[in-house]
Amino acid sequence: MPLPIALDAMGGDFAPELVIKGARRAVDELGLEVTLVGVPELMGDPLGLPVVACTEVIAMDDEPGSSVRKKKDSSLVRCAELVRDGHASAMVSAGNTGATMAAALLRMGRLPGVVRPCIATPIPNPGRAPSTMVDAGANAECTPEMLLQFAQLASAFAGARFSIESPSVGLLSIGEESSKGTPLVKETHELLAQSGLNFFGNVEGRDLIPAPVDVIVTDGFTGNVALKTLEGAFKFIFSTILTALDTDEASRAAGQALMPYLLPHVTTLSPEYQGGAMLLGLKGLCVISHGSSNDTAIMNALRVAAEMDAAGVVAKMALAIRPDQGS
Amino acid sequence: MPLPIALDAMGGDFAPELVIKGARRAVDELGLEVTLVGVPELMGDPLGLPVVACTEVIAMDDEPGSSVRKKKDSSLVRCAELVRDGHASAMVSAGNTGATMAAALLRMGRLPGVVRPCIATPIPNPGRAPSTMVDAGANAECTPEMLLQFAQLASAFAGARFSIESPSVGLLSIGEESSKGTPLVKETHELLAQSGLNFFGNVEGRDLIPAPVDVIVTDGFTGNVALKTLEGAFKFIFSTILTALDTDEASRAAGQALMPYLLPHVTTLSPEYQGGAMLLGLKGLCVISHGSSNDTAIMNALRVAAEMDAAGVVAKMALAIRPDQGS
Repeated sequence: MPLPIALDAMGGDFAPELVIKGARRAVDELGLEVTLVGVPELMGDPLGLPVVACTEVIAMDDEPGSSVRKKKDSSLVRCAELVRDGHASAMVSAGNTGATMAAALLRMGRLPGVVRPCIATPIPNPGRAPSTMVDAGANAECTPEMLLQFAQLASAFAGARFSIESPSVGLLSIGEESSKGTPLVKETHELLAQSGLNFFGNVEGRDLIPAPVDVIVTDGFTGNVALKTLEGAFKFIFSTILTALDTDEASRAAGQALMPYLLPHVTTLSPEYQGGAMLLGLKGLCVISHGSSNDTAIMNALRVAAEMDAAGVVAKMALAIRPDQGS
Repeated sequence: MPLPIALDAMGGDFAPELVIKGARRAVDELGLEVTLVGVPELMGDPLGLPVVACTEVIAMDDEPGSSVRKKKDSSLVRCAELVRDGHASAMVSAGNTGATMAAALLRMGRLPGVVRPCIATPIPNPGRAPSTMVDAGANAECTPEMLLQFAQLASAFAGARFSIESPSVGLLSIGEESSKGTPLVKETHELLAQSGLNFFGNVEGRDLIPAPVDVIVTDGFTGNVALKTLEGAFKFIFSTILTALDTDEASRAAGQALMPYLLPHVTTLSPEYQGGAMLLGLKGLCVISHGSSNDTAIMNALRVAAEMDAAGVVAKMALAIRPDQGS
């Protein structure tokens, strides 16, 4: 039987209530094992789930690095230690993103050869597995060598997680030609072309959804801007449409009639069904759920963590970065 | 009476037919003066509009710099010369974007003090003037000083074009705090804070539409990625919705009933009503229309060019870069 997943019961806008509810649903509906990590006096009813008690909480606005160093008995740090010590298969948090990364990095450590961990975020593709964008914001400044590693990590991840034989990798740029882009992009293009990865070439902003590739590589600044732009565009269009559908009697009736047709697509695009972002390159699994996660989002983040564990993602990433030890 | 606008009759996927049709409509429907620049044997019927004849065409895939240097009698180069020589108030092209920029830069020249021209692209804001994003792709590599100038140029542009007293300026980054982002962004943040511009602070990808500011400043790589991401997201969602509305009899009927409510919003977001991108920082006006421009898009690009001329955008930009000569 797999190890339980360590869930930060204190992290997220709707913690602890909806976080614990999401855990309960993951146990009941998906058959997962979940350990809550939190401060008993602040947690309320754990709904019958096992609890690892701690005494501190890292707040959403705490400075990531120093809070992880100071709050050694915080739920986030204890989650990462449970993974490190072999008591949990993965950690999941909807709390302070920077502190989650710091706790995972400092407690689990990097896989051998990994320069910097990166954040992988799924972008939905209707009808097939999502594309994986790296880096979605962990590293604002990158070198070509870092981007190559992100591509190797994400390729190993996507291959294991979505059973893709040889994931195709696209490099985010401002034109298809290898001559387009910044020096970082041009040098990375050359490294990827020689990497042995299934390199597709450059992709552009308009290719993000649906994407022609399984993995999209970029620096953490551009990746963060692109993902938030996508998020903002979806939010804007859906709210515009909902307003239009609420204009008068006739539009409301027509809108009602259309809901069964539109809802499946809204679901596909909704962050709560994606399960959050993943930290790649560490000696353990860490899923970073959206701060606004409700119980459904938490349940899906736990599902993603369990699937990553079952797929052996960490071992595959270790091999991808150290191919000399692969056979 | 204002000077005519020089229109590249040979540029764009639907040139020359729809380009000339757009010019005719701009004359008939908007009362503008337009001079077509093109190769008479390739142009077909000029629909009664004045023509400046040339002998060459720069193709969509020609290398920008060298094609402008070699094809001195091309429609693009001749358009730029008409502006330079005081025979036209502005140039408009839906052709090769890089060559349009190169022709405008080489023939019109930069305003005094301008290091590099930049591309300004409007992002619609429902119910109020669009926001102006600079740089939308002219300069993949930027310095903080360049970004400051882009902000000054775009602020002068937005002030004149949309009659905004003191346009607010946002810096695109990955967090609201001034400590977030790349060194380029952090240094630019300091320059903008001291610039005398109406600096709002950082904005994120999710703030692009609708935007809390009148001007959004970023480097040409990030700007290009963000705008194409926005474009791709809109295209994807609209095609997803149209597919959903076409599922069966019931959805088609409901979809028909909703069209009058949805169409105004589609129009607001459609590139053909925005009039294209503008080159800022030169001694003349240049509007770069989308390659796929139809006659409506061309008519709107001509309208934008005329409005920029009427607003005295070039003079305002000159003052913004050389404030010592402003009073």
